[in-house]
Amino acid sequence: MEFKISRESLQQFEDLIAAKDEKGLLEILQDIHYADIAEIMNELSQEEAIYLFDILDSEVTAEILLELDEDVREKILKNLSPKEIAEELDELDTDDAADIISELPEDKKEEVLSELEDLEHAKDIVELLRYDEDTAGGLMAKEFVSVNENWSVLTCVREMRKQAENVSRVHSIYVLDDDGRLKGRLSLKDLLTSSTTTHISDVYIRNVDFVKVDTKDVEVARIMQKYDLEAIPVVDEMGRLVGRITIDDIVDVIKEEADKDYQLAAGISQDVEANDSILMLTRARLPWLILAMIGGFVAVNVSRSFEGAMEKFGVLFFFTPLIAAMAGNVGVQSSAIIVQGLANNTITGSIWKRLGKEVTLSLLNGFLLAILMMLGSHFLLGVDYIIGITVSIALISVIIIASLIGTFVPILLNKYGIDPALATGPFITTSNDIFGILIYFSIAKVILGF
Amino acid sequence: MEFKISRESLQQFEDLIAAKDEKGLLEILQDIHYADIAEIMNELSQEEAIYLFDILDSEVTAEILLELDEDVREKILKNLSPKEIAEELDELDTDDAADIISELPEDKKEEVLSELEDLEHAKDIVELLRYDEDTAGGLMAKEFVSVNENWSVLTCVREMRKQAENVSRVHSIYVLDDDGRLKGRLSLKDLLTSSTTTHISDVYIRNVDFVKVDTKDVEVARIMQKYDLEAIPVVDEMGRLVGRITIDDIVDVIKEEADKDYQLAAGISQDVEANDSILMLTRARLPWLILAMIGGFVAVNVSRSFEGAMEKFGVLFFFTPLIAAMAGNVGVQSSAIIVQGLANNTITGSIWKRLGKEVTLSLLNGFLLAILMMLGSHFLLGVDYIIGITVSIALISVIIIASLIGTFVPILLNKYGIDPALATGPFITTSNDIFGILIYFSIAKVILGF
Repeated sequence: MEFKISRESLQQFEDLIAAKDEKGLLEILQDIHYADIAEIMNELSQEEAIYLFDILDSEVTAEILLELDEDVREKILKNLSPKEIAEELDELDTDDAADIISELPEDKKEEVLSELEDLEHAKDIVELLRYDEDTAGGLMAKEFVSVNENWSVLTCVREMRKQAENVSRVHSIYVLDDDGRLKGRLSLKDLLTSSTTTHISDVYIRNVDFVKVDTKDVEVARIMQKYDLEAIPVVDEMGRLVGRITIDDIVDVIKEEADKDYQLAAGISQDVEANDSILMLTRARLPWLILAMIGGFVAVNVSRSFEGAMEKFGVLFFFTPLIAAMAGNVGVQSSAIIVQGLANNTITGSIWKRLGKEVTLSLLNGFLLAILMMLGSHFLLGVDYIIGITVSIALISVIIIASLIGTFVPILLNKYGIDPALATGPFITTSNDIFGILIYFSIAKVILGF
Repeated sequence: MEFKISRESLQQFEDLIAAKDEKGLLEILQDIHYADIAEIMNELSQEEAIYLFDILDSEVTAEILLELDEDVREKILKNLSPKEIAEELDELDTDDAADIISELPEDKKEEVLSELEDLEHAKDIVELLRYDEDTAGGLMAKEFVSVNENWSVLTCVREMRKQAENVSRVHSIYVLDDDGRLKGRLSLKDLLTSSTTTHISDVYIRNVDFVKVDTKDVEVARIMQKYDLEAIPVVDEMGRLVGRITIDDIVDVIKEEADKDYQLAAGISQDVEANDSILMLTRARLPWLILAMIGGFVAVNVSRSFEGAMEKFGVLFFFTPLIAAMAGNVGVQSSAIIVQGLANNTITGSIWKRLGKEVTLSLLNGFLLAILMMLGSHFLLGVDYIIGITVSIALISVIIIASLIGTFVPILLNKYGIDPALATGPFITTSNDIFGILIYFSIAKVILGF
């Protein structure tokens, strides 16, 4: 069933394309899922991909378009006339068609829209283009099955058969009043198990979850996950049903959000992939490295301000990377727990209680690590016992401060509407490096008196 | 629609429970979704939660059980007799019932199973308990709608009505041969739009995606995402249909996998939440800190082996935290891209090409950062120009090596079947700290000759 792309299979396609063996290609491709054909095209050269695209049927190519890597899709679309693009879009659901149109340059957008054959479809796509990409309106499709609360089940089934032709997956049947306002839903199961003579108003479920067009996509994802929904209706400001969102779109939102948080924690600021161009990867990575380097300059100056210790207690300087590393690791751990808790909405209770818990935790970890440090500095490193004590005390202090910063900063960012995930990764490690080294030398100065 | 938990609403519940106002509680709770009731119970004391659980109907409590935090569920289950637990499980789908049973202590498991009323249901649950949690068998449910390829559509509809009573969400109708082997599927849409006189073998779709019982859960998730499936049938070794997996279970797999990778990158080794106990959080975090500290000891020794530089070039030691930080950040960036690429199956091409790309990228980043370092060390830090040159050259080298380690290690781990996500976070930062400092001082020694 699943097609596994390999160097051999790619070579086979390249050979067939070079030989312009249309019949041979179509014979192989007919058994391959469009998602797999898209993967093959992602790996081919531009000319090869365009050749393959051209010989395939528009029913398949429309679906392939959706699955292609963005840069490959851009190249393919550039090669198509507005009329050809419109033909592809006529095959797609409104939400997917709107996504593809929104990637086109401004002038081409209008040309494509004017070439769409189905006017109802075109109107729906234009409506969807109005909404922000990261809202329920930007996610929803106009394809849904709805019935009037005043209909009989018989009328209902007849109307639904008509509507279902345009809807690839029927999840729920939404029940509306005469003004198009969402009143409830009818489950397919109820439909299968109830007799055709029943009246709609007697069988529909009045309690229905919904979101508004301007609800944020991550919020829609959270609600659908929490209530285990496979589709959710979207209403406008007046409560009228304007679209529905299905779980497959939400899976993408969840995946993207998780990937984004992960990348931010690793110091990568844009949605990039291993296969993206070097320039794109640099743009995503360099800013964080520059931030880390500026932080590094500050750390150099902090160290240097304790230069006086070098003559008598030069050994202290061997420990700065260790102290900085511990501060960074602890900070990242604390912030990651908070960022994930905020994302999953599992953070409850007051901020003070949270900070209190983090201090207790750090005291516990710090104490155990300080003992290890005492033992290690004596038996492994063989430094003076007073140096061992100094470093150990500094270590506990640094761990506590680092975990407080790691806890506090994401909560603060979140409070002011900034993505708390920004606080993980290079930002927290860099600031904790600086504070860590400062605290370390300050404590050493008090104890050793240099 | 969504119930927002607040300090006031919690207080209200606590007051009503204290007053044992069963009627008042039920009146409020009837409008609240079971997922929200579970959230409320997670916040209440054990006695309060048990009181609430006891007054609610078993149809609701069964669903609540599923949504509760694991530790709260454990406490509630401990308080129930095997017969009471069996009553809850009778309300649930087989996959959810099996999940709950598998959390029970061994001896209680059998007692509960013997108390289940519906023997068919019990048999199905026992079968599901055989499969590993992280395989298709562990994810699937036994509730599905299937028809025989030799039936007429009329028989089909009649049989389906019967089956649908036990299935909460009908996704696809699976078509089987006389031996129960999966032959294809019938979409609900086809059912809605085709006449009742049609014969099954004429309308069913012969091409159907499926997975085997022993397919890994992340692999199931990948396939369902790639092919945009909302349900997938599961077959045994002989191709017989034994269950189906729905997208809502896959959403949980995707979420868990992403959360786990994120936590590993942050140096947290178990699936913990901000609200978990301090002991659990320590267990998840301390091992990584100990690893980082042992790495720190090595870094101290590396620094110390260049002690000879301290007298004449003491300024070099101010830069060690900066070098270590840059090495760590670059390593985490490289490894994160690879780990994510491996998870999303988007890494193509040979390992040498990948390493080559990473070197080019690091050269670019390293060169730009080295210029910044030259300028910074001269204008901001005012160190000797020869020191600035030394640190800059070391910086480029460290960045290249760090990115190579960050790329190579996760690929290597993956090749040997070890989770590559282990290579991000503390592991990579610690090893890169050590290599970074070693390279830095070695280069300094060559240039400055101490």
